[in-house]
This record gives sequence, structure tokens and C-alpha cells, in this order.
Amino acid sequence: MVQCEIIAIGTELLLGQIQDTNSSWLGENLALIGVDNYYQSKIGDNEERIVDALKLALSRSDAIICCGGLGPTQDDITREAIAKATDSKLILNEKVAEKIEYMFSSRGRHMTQNNLKQAMIPKGGIAIEDQPGTAPGILFPFKNKVIYAVPGVPYELKQIMRSTILPDLKKRSGSTTIIKSRTLRTWGHTESKLAELLEPKIEQLNESQNTTLAFLASGIEGLKLRITVKGETEEEIAQQLDNEEKHIRSIIGDVVFGVNSETIEQRILKNLQDKNLTLSAVEIATDGLASTRLGKVDSLGKYFKGCIIPKSQLSKHQLLQHTQKESDFSETKRLADAVRNFFDSDIGLAITYSEKEGVNYLAISSNNILIEEAMKLPGDGVRVSQFSVITALNLLRVQIENNLV
Amino acid sequence: MVQCEIIAIGTELLLGQIQDTNSSWLGENLALIGVDNYYQSKIGDNEERIVDALKLALSRSDAIICCGGLGPTQDDITREAIAKATDSKLILNEKVAEKIEYMFSSRGRHMTQNNLKQAMIPKGGIAIEDQPGTAPGILFPFKNKVIYAVPGVPYELKQIMRSTILPDLKKRSGSTTIIKSRTLRTWGHTESKLAELLEPKIEQLNESQNTTLAFLASGIEGLKLRITVKGETEEEIAQQLDNEEKHIRSIIGDVVFGVNSETIEQRILKNLQDKNLTLSAVEIATDGLASTRLGKVDSLGKYFKGCIIPKSQLSKHQLLQHTQKESDFSETKRLADAVRNFFDSDIGLAITYSEKEGVNYLAISSNNILIEEAMKLPGDGVRVSQFSVITALNLLRVQIENNLV
Repeated sequence: MVQCEIIAIGTELLLGQIQDTNSSWLGENLALIGVDNYYQSKIGDNEERIVDALKLALSRSDAIICCGGLGPTQDDITREAIAKATDSKLILNEKVAEKIEYMFSSRGRHMTQNNLKQAMIPKGGIAIEDQPGTAPGILFPFKNKVIYAVPGVPYELKQIMRSTILPDLKKRSGSTTIIKSRTLRTWGHTESKLAELLEPKIEQLNESQNTTLAFLASGIEGLKLRITVKGETEEEIAQQLDNEEKHIRSIIGDVVFGVNSETIEQRILKNLQDKNLTLSAVEIATDGLASTRLGKVDSLGKYFKGCIIPKSQLSKHQLLQHTQKESDFSETKRLADAVRNFFDSDIGLAITYSEKEGVNYLAISSNNILIEEAMKLPGDGVRVSQFSVITALNLLRVQIENNLV
Repeated sequence: MVQCEIIAIGTELLLGQIQDTNSSWLGENLALIGVDNYYQSKIGDNEERIVDALKLALSRSDAIICCGGLGPTQDDITREAIAKATDSKLILNEKVAEKIEYMFSSRGRHMTQNNLKQAMIPKGGIAIEDQPGTAPGILFPFKNKVIYAVPGVPYELKQIMRSTILPDLKKRSGSTTIIKSRTLRTWGHTESKLAELLEPKIEQLNESQNTTLAFLASGIEGLKLRITVKGETEEEIAQQLDNEEKHIRSIIGDVVFGVNSETIEQRILKNLQDKNLTLSAVEIATDGLASTRLGKVDSLGKYFKGCIIPKSQLSKHQLLQHTQKESDFSETKRLADAVRNFFDSDIGLAITYSEKEGVNYLAISSNNILIEEAMKLPGDGVRVSQFSVITALNLLRVQIENNLV
């Protein structure tokens, strides 16, 4: 098994001017190909310290990924540090040099000599040329180890990792083990409730050694349940993931709203499409948070007709003129009905706030139902808003899926 | 000058399940008290590797901050690793133990023996007791160096850093230099235009050695211009920051909308308060993004009356019934007027999208004006939305401040 460590390079990372999101992405993706990652470090743009960090990494790891410091300016010294730490020479890669020259001339821009610095590769190393920017990645086998260098710009880094470095590491590791994850996104149970329901399952999985279950709370993205399976073939793993998902769903009930990257708003849109229903919303407690999210997944407003955010008492009255429900219905219910009439949609959703009780309310109005629920949610303002939105959208999901609206 | 390094502890950080935002916050705050930070590393929950990392850090740094691994569970081993790396004993701090016992009993919860682990402090060390959670921080002078440990929960970490560790480090550094920053938030010039305008200023500052200017682009928070001043007294620095701010404002013109943490939505609210004006908005291109932000700073809707997001053509027509402007006015202008009438506010703001031209439009309607501007903005969907919102709010700011609405 290969052990790979990560060195992120750049003074701006140490000063907190830029968040180092690369290292966590790399850590996650190394884990998914079964490569161990025990060390991640950040070093500033100082040649001596980068060389020391490289030497230390070479003494304890089989592979090193350096991110950042491959640009054309004076403070970009990753190439030079790699050469120094390994006692190698930097050589101009003619093909890369031509490519850089072409990138400049085709955009009608002037290229300085500095830009050619980006075509320097340690002797014996390979330029990873599918770079989206001007800097190629570097793959440098050194003794029985390997040093990689990738640009710090996240999308450039990811492209080079996916196309070249992750497959190369996987090959070097000699492992035929494949690791895959599937995430079930849930809403409706607390983390402790989920853990309680799944306790026997988790114990059983711990004994099996090839499948694990992890929990991750993530605001409006829901409470995530990640199933990770190790195996030897894609088919075997897919089958195992299917089995585990089915079993877990049977244990935790109707709280799964999405799988992997599927969001609650995507699920709602799919529900509306499936049943050919339209939706509109009034948001007081949540200031348009639900609508911003729904609007993004239905940019033309085919199913999500619109939203009204009436901030003041007077604004609410403006909207309430659009309902016939009398005041023996709660204000939340009447607002849900009013926005449905205003936008002429099949369903109206309202998220409101009772200052007196310190509680958010949600209501759903359709031809068939007019329901309301109080939402007592933990946390600060931002979290209460996020939880209110996902709670409201999840109730709506359950109502539509059970043909109640 | 003290050199302090940071070790973030937790396997979940290496696996990318949690982003390590602590290290960048710490790096930034160490810089602000003039303490150098050359190394930041992440290590998993493995005693041997944490001990090695501590020994390495003791060999090259004067101070070490360990974050994370102070909880009550089996995998929280930062205390044990510090004791092992320094050949010290852990001793139960009776006062902290009592406090933890009290926290549990006062909440009617059962305390396990594991929780008392959190009261173990290396001999010669001090428990930093103003902990917001159950885990105290640790301040452990070791030989001529110092090891700190703080919980990984960001708000607990920040409280302990601010109250105890940053002042302690500052004292140890022996430095009387104070470093302060002031950030001017701007909108209206590109980064390169700002850099061009400020070039002579930056050159002059580089020579002065005690003041620097940095640029930072940050979406809806605007293009930030950070002035950093070193000096010996608070008064001297405040004076210098005032002078530089004044001079910079005179160079770059009316593009500064806020100082330090002041956001564009706070500034708009302040403008509305000052002139006793009310605002409402219609958002099509931006799906409620501006209103969510305005809603948060005016939760009772005293000045921001509300928003309508009409997603479909029909929804737009529902809203357009509220204006008398004929169709020789653009739709964007008529929508701004309609939402103003719907909510009975002084100003109506509209942000719309022309699919044909691929351009966002903004319009402002009041008793005095009815204006419109096209917004051609770079980037992907999310960035275009953010830029549209800040462009629209900034134009509104300028209109109100110049008494044009």
C-alpha cells in the first residue's frame, strides 16, 4: 500500500488570505483509491523550508503531492525546491514551451521570459500536459518514490489529478481493491436517533470489515449517511452498495430525500415534474432562502412559479388580499393560500415566524389540503433558517410522494 | 520574535470530511500580533504520529498550537500525545473536574468517567478555564518553549485564543509593535483598474516599510482593499490608518461602500434609515439573493418592505398589473415600478435577465427617477448572480447618497 503526503505551498495559505481547500479534496480522493494519507502540511514561499519539507516527506512517505507555486512569478519556487531537495537539474521541456508560447500568441498577449519558467521540469520527470492553465503538472519518479506537483488553482489541480495522478498512484499502489461510497441524504431524524436505529447495523458492518457507515451533518444539505464499500470488482461493489442502501432504507424509514449529490430542491423539482404540479412560496422567517435554491434548479420557472417575501405587517396585508380564507384560519395557512392564488399555482408553501413563541411555522395549501406545522429548531439564526427550509421542503416532498396534495 | 506553528489534529481533516478553517484563522491572527507562522500541519488521530509531529515542532519552533482532539472519546488523544512528546505526566485538575461535573448535573445529564479525561492537564501546565464547551484549553510552558492546546470547534477555539493564547504569545514575543488592518470594501472598479489608480501610492508605501496595501476579491463582499499599519502605539496607528484611508478614498473615488465588516446590505439599510425611505425588490435574474441579504439586516421589515420573485411569464404578468407604466417602458422598469406599488414603498428595485442578450438588467423606480442599466458580468451563474446583486445595490447606494431617489 502506498502512503502519500500532501504539501500545500504558498505564504497566502499560512496568512489565511486563501483557504486551503485543495488538501481536503486530495485527502478525500486519495482515500477513495485506497491510498493512505497521514500528513498534510502548509509551507510558505520560502525555498529552504520547502526543501526541508520535501526531504522530510521523502524520508517517511512513498509519494508526495505538492500543490501551488508553479506560476510564472518570482515567488513561485516549487520546481526549484523539488530540484534542490532531490539534487536534480531543471530542464526546459520544448514541447511545453511551445505550447505556452502558442497560448500567449493566440490570445494576442505578450509573453515574458518568466512564463517559460513554467516549462522547466526536473530531469527524468514528465510534464503532465493536459493542463487547463499555462502551468503543466509534474510527475517525477525519484529513486523508489514519486513526487508530483500540481497548480494551486482548484479546477486545474482537479483536472490533472483525475486524468493522471490518481490513476498513476493507484497503479503504483499495486492494489486491485476498489473503494466506492454512496451518500444517502436524510431529513427527519436527529443524528442520535439515526445512530440509535442503525446501531445493530453498524456493529454488523464493523465485523464484515469491507463496509463502513459514517454520519455527517451539513445544514440544508441534510444529515448525510455515507456507505463505503471495498471490493475487487465494480459489479461486486455496486451490488453491495445496492444491498446496503436497501437495508438501511428499510431501517430508517422515509427520511431519505436524495442520493449522492441530489439536493432537496432537486428532489422537489423532480416531484413536481412527475406529478405535473406547480409551486409558489411565501417566505417570512427565511427571507427567500428556499426560493433562491428552488429558483436555481428551475431557472425558467416551469414548475416553481415564484415567491413573495412580505417583510412588514402592511406587506403581509397586501398579500393576504389574495385569499378568501377567513381569519379563523391561521395567518400562515392564509399566506400559503394567498401566494398560491397570486401566482396561480397548484401548491402554496409558507414559512413564517412567530416572534411571541420564537418558533417558525410552515403551511402547505393545495386544492386537497391546508396543513400547518410548528418548527422548533436548534441553533443560531442562519442554522434555524437552513433547518426551516429543509424541514418545509421535506414535508412537501412527503406530501407529494404520498399523493396528498 | 516568536515563531509559532500549528498542528491540526483529526483523521476527519485528512479525509476531507471537515474543512480545516481553524489553521487559516490562526495564521491570520498570529500575523496580526506580529508572530511568525512558518508551518501548519494536519495529523490524524494516531498517537505515534502526533508525538512525532510535536517533537519536530519543538525542534524548530518556539511555540506550538495544537487544535482538536480534546474531546471525551477514545480517539481524542492530544493530551496524551503532548505528555508523551514532553515526557510529562497528566494530572487531574480538580477545579476543571468539578466544573465539568457541574455542567452535566445542571443540565440533568449523566456524566461518564470519560468526560473527566478532559480535566487532565500536563504537570506544570495551566487549564485555560474560560472554555465555552466542556474542554478547557491548555497552556503548557515546556523548557524555553510553550505548547498550547485548543478544542477544534471553531467558536471555542476563537474564544480561548482571544482571551488567553494570543495575549500570552504577544507577551512572550517581547514585541511592542502593534499591527492593525482596516479594510475598505469597494465596488465599481475592476481589480486591475484599482491597482492602476493606486500604483504610485503602493510604491510610496513600499518605501515607507510600515504600511502595506493588499487587494482581495470576494464576490458579493466586494473588492477589498486592506491597509495594514505597524506602529508602537494605538493612537499612532489609528492616525496613520485614518490618513491612508482618506488619501486612498481621494484617489479611487466614490467606490467605497463599507469599512471592515460593513456589508453592502448594511450600508443600504443605513442609507434608507438616514433618509427615512422604504424599499422593495423584484428579483428574476438573482432568485431572491439580494432580498435574503437585505432581509437579514432588517428582520422586521421596517425599511425593506419585501420582495417578489416571479419565475414564469405568467407570474410576471400577475405583478405587472400593479403598475400604470405602459409597454413603451422596458419590462425591467415596469417591474421595478410594480413592486414599489405592490408593497407601497418609496423605492422599487428590479433585477432581471434577458435571455436573448445574455445580460442582466437592473432598474430603480421612485417618485423622482425611473432608471435602468444593463449589467454585463463575467463568470459562471453563481458569480454573475453575486455580481448583479452587488452592482444593483451599489447603484442604489450612490443614488440615495446623492439624493437622486
